[in-house]
Amino acid sequence: MKDVVVFSGSAHPALADRICAHLGVNRAPVDIKRFSNDCLQAQLLENCRLRDVYLVQPLVPPTQEHLMELLLMIDAARGASAAQITAVMPHYAYARSDKKDASRISLGGRLVADMIGTAGAHRVLTMALHAPQVHGFFSMPVDHLTAIGVLADHFRGSDLKDCVVVSPDLGNAKVASQFARLLGLPVAAGSKRRISDEEVVIDSIVGDVAGRRAIILDDEIATGGSMLELMDRLRDAGATEATVVCTHGLFAGKAVERLRGHPFVTEVVTTDTVPPPVGWPELRVRSVAALLAEAIDRIHHGRSVSSLFEGVDPAYAPPQARLPFETLA
Amino acid sequence: MKDVVVFSGSAHPALADRICAHLGVNRAPVDIKRFSNDCLQAQLLENCRLRDVYLVQPLVPPTQEHLMELLLMIDAARGASAAQITAVMPHYAYARSDKKDASRISLGGRLVADMIGTAGAHRVLTMALHAPQVHGFFSMPVDHLTAIGVLADHFRGSDLKDCVVVSPDLGNAKVASQFARLLGLPVAAGSKRRISDEEVVIDSIVGDVAGRRAIILDDEIATGGSMLELMDRLRDAGATEATVVCTHGLFAGKAVERLRGHPFVTEVVTTDTVPPPVGWPELRVRSVAALLAEAIDRIHHGRSVSSLFEGVDPAYAPPQARLPFETLA
Amino acid sequence: MKDVVVFSGSAHPALADRICAHLGVNRAPVDIKRFSNDCLQAQLLENCRLRDVYLVQPLVPPTQEHLMELLLMIDAARGASAAQITAVMPHYAYARSDKKDASRISLGGRLVADMIGTAGAHRVLTMALHAPQVHGFFSMPVDHLTAIGVLADHFRGSDLKDCVVVSPDLGNAKVASQFARLLGLPVAAGSKRRISDEEVVIDSIVGDVAGRRAIILDDEIATGGSMLELMDRLRDAGATEATVVCTHGLFAGKAVERLRGHPFVTEVVTTDTVPPPVGWPELRVRSVAALLAEAIDRIHHGRSVSSLFEGVDPAYAPPQARLPFETLA
Amino acid sequence: MKDVVVFSGSAHPALADRICAHLGVNRAPVDIKRFSNDCLQAQLLENCRLRDVYLVQPLVPPTQEHLMELLLMIDAARGASAAQITAVMPHYAYARSDKKDASRISLGGRLVADMIGTAGAHRVLTMALHAPQVHGFFSMPVDHLTAIGVLADHFRGSDLKDCVVVSPDLGNAKVASQFARLLGLPVAAGSKRRISDEEVVIDSIVGDVAGRRAIILDDEIATGGSMLELMDRLRDAGATEATVVCTHGLFAGKAVERLRGHPFVTEVVTTDTVPPPVGWPELRVRSVAALLAEAIDRIHHGRSVSSLFEGVDPAYAPPQARLPFETLA
Amino acid sequence: MKDVVVFSGSAHPALADRICAHLGVNRAPVDIKRFSNDCLQAQLLENCRLRDVYLVQPLVPPTQEHLMELLLMIDAARGASAAQITAVMPHYAYARSDKKDASRISLGGRLVADMIGTAGAHRVLTMALHAPQVHGFFSMPVDHLTAIGVLADHFRGSDLKDCVVVSPDLGNAKVASQFARLLGLPVAAGSKRRISDEEVVIDSIVGDVAGRRAIILDDEIATGGSMLELMDRLRDAGATEATVVCTHGLFAGKAVERLRGHPFVTEVVTTDTVPPPVGWPELRVRSVAALLAEAIDRIHHGRSVSSLFEGVDPAYAPPQARLPFETLA
Amino acid sequence: MKDVVVFSGSAHPALADRICAHLGVNRAPVDIKRFSNDCLQAQLLENCRLRDVYLVQPLVPPTQEHLMELLLMIDAARGASAAQITAVMPHYAYARSDKKDASRISLGGRLVADMIGTAGAHRVLTMALHAPQVHGFFSMPVDHLTAIGVLADHFRGSDLKDCVVVSPDLGNAKVASQFARLLGLPVAAGSKRRISDEEVVIDSIVGDVAGRRAIILDDEIATGGSMLELMDRLRDAGATEATVVCTHGLFAGKAVERLRGHPFVTEVVTTDTVPPPVGWPELRVRSVAALLAEAIDRIHHGRSVSSLFEGVDPAYAPPQARLPFETLA
Repeated sequence: MKDVVVFSGSAHPALADRICAHLGVNRAPVDIKRFSNDCLQAQLLENCRLRDVYLVQPLVPPTQEHLMELLLMIDAARGASAAQITAVMPHYAYARSDKKDASRISLGGRLVADMIGTAGAHRVLTMALHAPQVHGFFSMPVDHLTAIGVLADHFRGSDLKDCVVVSPDLGNAKVASQFARLLGLPVAAGSKRRISDEEVVIDSIVGDVAGRRAIILDDEIATGGSMLELMDRLRDAGATEATVVCTHGLFAGKAVERLRGHPFVTEVVTTDTVPPPVGWPELRVRSVAALLAEAIDRIHHGRSVSSLFEGVDPAYAPPQARLPFETLA
Repeated sequence: MKDVVVFSGSAHPALADRICAHLGVNRAPVDIKRFSNDCLQAQLLENCRLRDVYLVQPLVPPTQEHLMELLLMIDAARGASAAQITAVMPHYAYARSDKKDASRISLGGRLVADMIGTAGAHRVLTMALHAPQVHGFFSMPVDHLTAIGVLADHFRGSDLKDCVVVSPDLGNAKVASQFARLLGLPVAAGSKRRISDEEVVIDSIVGDVAGRRAIILDDEIATGGSMLELMDRLRDAGATEATVVCTHGLFAGKAVERLRGHPFVTEVVTTDTVPPPVGWPELRVRSVAALLAEAIDRIHHGRSVSSLFEGVDPAYAPPQARLPFETLA
Repeated sequence: MKDVVVFSGSAHPALADRICAHLGVNRAPVDIKRFSNDCLQAQLLENCRLRDVYLVQPLVPPTQEHLMELLLMIDAARGASAAQITAVMPHYAYARSDKKDASRISLGGRLVADMIGTAGAHRVLTMALHAPQVHGFFSMPVDHLTAIGVLADHFRGSDLKDCVVVSPDLGNAKVASQFARLLGLPVAAGSKRRISDEEVVIDSIVGDVAGRRAIILDDEIATGGSMLELMDRLRDAGATEATVVCTHGLFAGKAVERLRGHPFVTEVVTTDTVPPPVGWPELRVRSVAALLAEAIDRIHHGRSVSSLFEGVDPAYAPPQARLPFETLA
Repeated sequence: MKDVVVFSGSAHPALADRICAHLGVNRAPVDIKRFSNDCLQAQLLENCRLRDVYLVQPLVPPTQEHLMELLLMIDAARGASAAQITAVMPHYAYARSDKKDASRISLGGRLVADMIGTAGAHRVLTMALHAPQVHGFFSMPVDHLTAIGVLADHFRGSDLKDCVVVSPDLGNAKVASQFARLLGLPVAAGSKRRISDEEVVIDSIVGDVAGRRAIILDDEIATGGSMLELMDRLRDAGATEATVVCTHGLFAGKAVERLRGHPFVTEVVTTDTVPPPVGWPELRVRSVAALLAEAIDRIHHGRSVSSLFEGVDPAYAPPQARLPFETLA
Repeated sequence: MKDVVVFSGSAHPALADRICAHLGVNRAPVDIKRFSNDCLQAQLLENCRLRDVYLVQPLVPPTQEHLMELLLMIDAARGASAAQITAVMPHYAYARSDKKDASRISLGGRLVADMIGTAGAHRVLTMALHAPQVHGFFSMPVDHLTAIGVLADHFRGSDLKDCVVVSPDLGNAKVASQFARLLGLPVAAGSKRRISDEEVVIDSIVGDVAGRRAIILDDEIATGGSMLELMDRLRDAGATEATVVCTHGLFAGKAVERLRGHPFVTEVVTTDTVPPPVGWPELRVRSVAALLAEAIDRIHHGRSVSSLFEGVDPAYAPPQARLPFETLA
Repeated sequence: MKDVVVFSGSAHPALADRICAHLGVNRAPVDIKRFSNDCLQAQLLENCRLRDVYLVQPLVPPTQEHLMELLLMIDAARGASAAQITAVMPHYAYARSDKKDASRISLGGRLVADMIGTAGAHRVLTMALHAPQVHGFFSMPVDHLTAIGVLADHFRGSDLKDCVVVSPDLGNAKVASQFARLLGLPVAAGSKRRISDEEVVIDSIVGDVAGRRAIILDDEIATGGSMLELMDRLRDAGATEATVVCTHGLFAGKAVERLRGHPFVTEVVTTDTVPPPVGWPELRVRSVAALLAEAIDRIHHGRSVSSLFEGVDPAYAPPQARLPFETLA
């Protein structure tokens, strides 16, 4: 059987290293060169010929730089006669550009999917797409994993009495429902109202949170602005405290400042699909490296990836108990 | 300027005729032949060369037959050197197959979009896609219209005191919110809970409906089963009556039997994106033909289609007042 | 070596079972779901990852349903990362739409071939295409088998004295010539004349049939109408009786009624490329399952398929003696 | 309206000139350069930008040279931003490679069709394809004309008493039937028998030719070998003389020697789809230039091409009376 | 005739404004939005339907940002049904990644060309590609202009006695030769020697420069490092002073510091294909806006672009005298 | 592991035989048939199914014939289900058509690259492309080898005192520099001047050649015209004699007559990428068969090809010492 080779762009080499550790391989070196006219060039420093190549690169800021690195690595792998090229994007940021909600706007989620195909990728391995329909933007096979099992694992063994899972948006409450089912908890949701084209407010909480401890689950936290607003509404509705949980913890702009030490927040939990923010030692980061490594191993050996999530809704399913999870911080 | 030619498959020629009437053209004849081995063949009976061809065909039952008719008509138009071929699908039924919610399932929404491109269509004109992301499944330009303006128009001039707009699924409440804003009404929603892979129940109503008259808005009604359940919950929650409104009124299976004469239902309103069910004279059908004709006219003359919906969210926007609407039944 | 997985759509599971029996594998289960809006969805219930997948589905009535099932199964297999996907279509019905014999008609034979490619098939395995040129409509490799060896086998050991092979159409007499050579018999043919666009009559027999027993060979029998006419002409020309032989025995419409018990017909022989008609126990059905299984085995193991037909014209060649054939009914 | 520009490769500039004369335009100059390593380069010496470009090049010997010239001209026109590029191939020689009649052979008819698309042609204008299915090998629109009207015109006004139209191959007798219908004559055909893989003999004549004058119609005459054999059989069957008629008069190898002055042959009639052979002044050449020019004019102005052949089978139909035809020699 | 619409990304709106001034149109507004996860979105704020759209964006630093903006604008224009989309890239920076000069490296010049096609551009308008072969990386028509006419114009009327044109690299001296011919001057070149994989030195001057004033011509100046070295060699070889001329004046890193006020340099001349560096008022910038506008006008109206450069080598040709040129600074 | 199968077109079977000898396989037979209308057909006479197929065909005169043979063989291999198809073109003659140096000319280098992809090749193995950018014309992986190691080997052990390597064109002196480095010699170059569009003269020698023996290195010699001129200039500049070396020794037209026995020429050395000219026994031909065989072996077994050239510029690198080279004549 042909060998696995794992490369990483500059977006998140630590995650790539963790994946390699689980796979028992060394991360293969890449040379990303920046020319004086700011163009990039990627050179893969290990033989790819007839090999099964995995390129790990979440699309995190600076997003365009990391996207271009990924495309150039794919191109290099194709030119180097790789047998199979998998773009491993634990965070596919452009998934948020998934609909034409204004005239003559770009549809970045589909465009970037097409570009990844044009560059030469044969498959995509990703996690927690913003909407499950984004799967259909890709012309190639996509293995779409969920981190909610890893996140639920964090709460196993804790006292969850009086807790309630809260989705920030009742329009996207499905994953929160599934998460609540995993933990045996009820679910509530924020109800958003659009004030203008630019502004959205959360003006009520749907479901009973009075006297309860909220576990807020979101797929991605960027600036954390709407999270603050949601917590105000939860407090208004009588919730006693909140744990904030998300798969993609970008924590951009003022997010760290806003959430770290917030009096209502007891804990913030995320995964390592993206690099952690600096200066936040209390942040709890659960690693998805074992899950990604297991998926790579199954892809490579032709075993079912979906059976990782047997018996549950594949789009939102937790991983099985047989996978060991590690805590990073 | 090259001419417009409008053909219709056998799915809904009456709608095509209404569109043609608005455009002031005659519907061009098509010969759909069925061979003794059940294969179909389409022949377009009017010159297409260098013309701007529109093929009207909602994907209604028998869906596979109508889809194949559409593909064969597109193929025939391409072979006949049409300058531009627009697939006019007022109801794109395969939009519901928009995600991989089980292992190894087909993704019909994307596959059919690709097939329409393979056959040779240059653009799609459609209405009320089940999810706005489905837009991104198509590789060609899509003009995606909404019928909620036409439907809202139905209620203009009525007494809407004590009314509330109700979305069957709080996970898809955005269109209902927009509809409610058009009518100046509050909004409520059913909260669905999944019992098993097969069974979903609506177990509560989010928002205040007590003592109110419900205007339930859905994109599509097929068998009407979950509509019955929703009405039970609305009655439980104190609603006094319900008007049922939907864009795509398929009314398949027992739907007519279930909804016609239901004691809680005061009126059922739909559009003519699909042919009306037989034996239901009280059904109120508002025509979208004027809207489709206006869009075709703008596509043909290179005027903005989105400006039809200026100032509002394009994905869910109502048509402007300057469009005359007709009632069919 | 990667495993073979054989799935069947709902067109002809019995044939798929026979093929599987020859291959010594179990037919893998598929779930074809029909939604209330009449859209279909396919789910493959066995792991396809890196496997060599065969999807058995002749295009028999209801043809559009079966075609869509096949396309959805191909799409599902592609999304499930199958290594190689072969569409096994023992009867490719759309092959009859192979030319533009009227203005602005669709060319279904090419369109469906393109659709099968768009869905994601890597190869096609088919039998007795209506015209050998249809092979060139496919952009992917096609393994095109013939059943005339299987059919000729039926007559081995019979008394063929005074027999003559008759082709219904002298414009397509090549296969009949080859069949006649296999049996060591002379050949004759009907001469068709077109009366109008719709109507064709057979007005004479070319070749000597007086006092002979005719063995009529056609690729497909649908309604059997022209077969009746041919037999009238054969009788006029002095033939004493007729055996009717065809690869694809659709027997649609009044075909069973017309042929079963016809006084001039001694026997009707066909294969199981399509399901047999109901209510015709005397019909002789020879199975092509062994031939298809042998081809699948050779495709899978990289052995030559054409060498199955060594020394003879590949397009019309019989299988070698080393293949065992079975009779089904 | 954008202008028509007609270029010609070196295969048959005289035909291009005749087409241009009918269209009332000057043939635009091309520079075909041959480098010392035998590579070719095409330069179009007239502005193509936004123009409707026609490249006239039948695929006649040296076929590979002429094919490459055509591909390079298409490429040059595409690079020069032509609005529409039509490959005008009055003789598409590779159409004879239309089936896989041996293991592992190339399918030149499809391959060359794909190459013409790859080079950038938007449409093909051709005449008398060897088999009508070859139409389906092209992914782009094809306007497929017939010359039998032009050829039939040759006989208008002649005494056709006791004449019979003869097709060399009863397997391809459809065009001959149509030709016979145009002239109001009966039809007969040669019956071919294959002796070995390489050798085919005509061993009988189907239909009554005794005492009749034969008008033999074929699509293409290359070396004329089988034509000689057919005439022997016609003589054996009692025919009194033969007129030989074909669309594509290649007359390669010994064909001129064989046919010119043959005692049984009264006249040989062909068209100018290919250049005439040298040293044969008696050959009657009817020009198809008016027909091609009329088709180009209709393509350019968006008028129906098929209506040129109204009321008759489009694949084999004669041009209408309203087209003036000229005789060249 | 359909209208021209010109949009600009954020790379160089001043150039777009100059082009629009020459064309007599207003630059159409674009909204480029950056989300909190650093993804970009482009919205075109003017109707594109059936229009001829030009998107002006040189690939200057930050190059990846500007490239992504361009791709998103192309995607938006395609989705908005533009009739023709031209990517106007006065500086195609990725052209320098034009060969595989190391194992397993990306080929950015081809990859980005493919991405521009995938996004939906129909044509490219560019200037002074690093190597003329890069033209062939694009699958679509490319109008490739040269600025050397504009640059030569700068010297018209000056005293050029004792001047010599110098190419930094004798391996790419063709454009310098053409420039010298325009000015009626001799040419010399630096001879580069590679010391290691990373380091290249200019160790001699080929041609006579002693006692002469050098006019150094390069296509692009990035950091200016090798320009300094070249001037040292020129001084060694007896040149008396140098004027530095380039098409793409990036002046990145220490370039301004190095060249401004350099004692050997009398003047630095460039064009506005890229934005000028800040803090260098003495830099002479000649505008190519008139040239680009003329090309756009010719593309739009279907007039020949190459005839702009009649009688000279198109790849390196100067514009004709009839074009007015302006100086910007 | 799947087998290697090597076929050869008619361009250079002797080279294919040498490659096969190094690989230890028998050359598989091909039947190239020419029809009477001059069309070609290729039949591969060995099973290709799931095999790794190599098609050896340099593009030498008659170039169009050999190109078409190659395309037909690729098509046949694809249709025969080859697992991987490599077009082995030791001389890719169309590489010289690499830029648009005149208006509206074809870009043969890119067009032929696209055609090879359209026919179905998965990879290209080639040698000494005229410009390294041509690599980027191919959409598939290209293994691009150099022969300068093989050529340098020829001089190992010779007395190289007072020798100098001379490049005919200072614009393409990079390979000559590399060759000089391999031999430890200085380098000089001819300086070309364009007199008119058609005529180029070499009017001086850059670098010191007085009293030295010149070793002239070019990639291809066709008619040898400019080589004669270069030798005149070398003699003028005081060189004492010349050895002529090239990778692709086409020696077309008067080349043999010009170079054989030329008083200034001591020796002519070339490789067998193309067949040797007839009637020139003194010509020294070094074989590249071992190098091509080694590359094929590495491609087949998934070992790095670039490591063949470790430590040196891959585009121009010599093969390592571990490869044995043979001399042919």
